[in-house]
Amino acid sequence: MNLDRFSINQMTVKQLALPELVEHCLRLGVPGIGLWREPVQEYGVEAAAALVRDAGLTVTTLCRGGFFTTDGWEAENRAAIDEAVTLGTDTLVLVSGGLTPACPDLLSARARITEAIAELAPYASDRGIRLAIEPLHPMYASDRCAVSTLDQALEIAERFPAEQVGVTVDTYHLWWDDRAPAAVERAGVTGRIHSFQLADWTTPLPAGVLNGRGQLGTGAIDLAAWAALLEKAGYTGPVEVELFNDELWARDGVEVLEETLEAFRAV
Amino acid sequence: MNLDRFSINQMTVKQLALPELVEHCLRLGVPGIGLWREPVQEYGVEAAAALVRDAGLTVTTLCRGGFFTTDGWEAENRAAIDEAVTLGTDTLVLVSGGLTPACPDLLSARARITEAIAELAPYASDRGIRLAIEPLHPMYASDRCAVSTLDQALEIAERFPAEQVGVTVDTYHLWWDDRAPAAVERAGVTGRIHSFQLADWTTPLPAGVLNGRGQLGTGAIDLAAWAALLEKAGYTGPVEVELFNDELWARDGVEVLEETLEAFRAV
Repeated sequence: MNLDRFSINQMTVKQLALPELVEHCLRLGVPGIGLWREPVQEYGVEAAAALVRDAGLTVTTLCRGGFFTTDGWEAENRAAIDEAVTLGTDTLVLVSGGLTPACPDLLSARARITEAIAELAPYASDRGIRLAIEPLHPMYASDRCAVSTLDQALEIAERFPAEQVGVTVDTYHLWWDDRAPAAVERAGVTGRIHSFQLADWTTPLPAGVLNGRGQLGTGAIDLAAWAALLEKAGYTGPVEVELFNDELWARDGVEVLEETLEAFRAV
Repeated sequence: MNLDRFSINQMTVKQLALPELVEHCLRLGVPGIGLWREPVQEYGVEAAAALVRDAGLTVTTLCRGGFFTTDGWEAENRAAIDEAVTLGTDTLVLVSGGLTPACPDLLSARARITEAIAELAPYASDRGIRLAIEPLHPMYASDRCAVSTLDQALEIAERFPAEQVGVTVDTYHLWWDDRAPAAVERAGVTGRIHSFQLADWTTPLPAGVLNGRGQLGTGAIDLAAWAALLEKAGYTGPVEVELFNDELWARDGVEVLEETLEAFRAV
C-alpha cells in the first residue's frame, strides 16, 4: 500500500518516546500517527498536541475511550473526548468493555454500551469528535469488549448519525468472520468506517492474549484482500498499523518502525 | 442438571488411568463417558472397549477425528471411525483443522473440510457412526479449526443426511455468538445435535489458549440458559463435561471428578 495513507499507532513502537517517534515519522515520510491516552498523558496532553501539530502529522485516532460497563465511565470518556480535541484528531476509538457485576451477561453489557454512547455522542459531536466503536475478537468478549462482530458494532452505531458514531475495522479482530465482508460494505455505504487498523494474526497466542498482534505479512490474514475490501466499500481514509507485541517491543523501536513501513508497503 | 444425562469426558480428569476413572464412575453413578483417541490407544482400544462395556458405561463420543487440512487425514479418520465402532459409541467428534500450505485461507480450508466429510460420511454411516462437526472458538481459526460458528458447521452438515453428519454444540466455543441460539434451534429441529459439551469461559486465557476451559460455574457462561436452549431445541441426549485445564490436571483426579459432578448438578 501507498505510504500516503499510512499511520503508525504509537503503541506499535511504545519503546520510543513521543519526540523520537515524531522525529522518525518526519524522516521517513510517515504522514499519520495514532495516539494512546496513557503515554500521551505521561508526556503531557498539551505538549504532545504541540509536538505533533508542529511536525505536521495527522493524528488519525486517539485510543481509547469505552469500558462503559465499569463505574466512572462517563467522566473518563468525557476526558478522553476533551483530550482528542486538544490533540487535533477527529476520531476516538471505543473499546466498549466486558462483563462486570453491573452487566453480568453480553446482552446487558451491550445495552449499557448503547446507553453510554447515546449519552456521549452529542458531547463528542459538539466538539468535532466522531466515536468509532471497535468490535474486538470474541476471545475478549468477557473481559474487554462485549461487542465482538462488526454487525454488532453497526447495530449500535446505526442508532446515531454516521458523522457522530461509526466503527473501527481492525483486521486482527475481524479476519475470521465470514459475515465481516458484508458488514464492511454496509459500514462503507453508510459512511461509518471511522478507522481502519491493521495487524496480522499469529499463533501460538501469548498468555492473556493481549500482546500477540503480529507484524503485517507474518500471519494468517490476507491483508491485501482486506485493503481491497475497504477500498471497494469506499473507504479512503488513513490506514493505521497497531501492533501490541512483546517481541517487537523488546527490539529497537526505530528498526521496528522502519520494518513496519516496509511491511505496509508490501501489502 | 440431573445426573442421568451426565457424561464425563476422559480429558477432564486425564490424570486418572482409565480403570480408575471407570471405577469411580460406577461408584458415583456416572452413566456416560467421552473417550479420547490418544489415551485409549495407550491403554489399548480393545481393552478400553471391554472395560467400559463391562462397566455398563455409555460411550457418548470419541474425540476426535478431523484435521482435514493436513496430509494423511483420510487414513487417520478411517482409523478413528473404526476405533469408534470398537468402543461402542455412535458419535465421532470432528475438529476440522486450520490453515495449512494446502489450504492457506479459511474458504479453501472449509472447502477441503466439506470434501473430506463427503468422503468419510458413507464409510462412517455404514459402520453406525455419526460425524459431529465441532465449531471451535474463532481464536482457533488459523491453527485448529476453520469452522468457527455453529452456522458454518451446519452449512457443511446440511449437505448430508442428519443421521450421518451433525454438529457438536460446545458452550466454550459458542457462548459469545449472538447467532448461536438460532443455529441451535435449527440444528435441533433438523436432528443434527449429535453432541452437547459443557465448559465455562474463564480469563485470563493461558498461553496457547488450549488449557483454559473452566470448571462449570466459575466463568462467564450462563450454562443453565444453554441447557434450556438445547432442551427447547429438542435435544435429550447426553451432556458431556469436557475441561482441559492445567490447574484441574494438577489436582487429585477423583476430587476433580466429584467436584465436576457437583458443579453439573448445580447448573
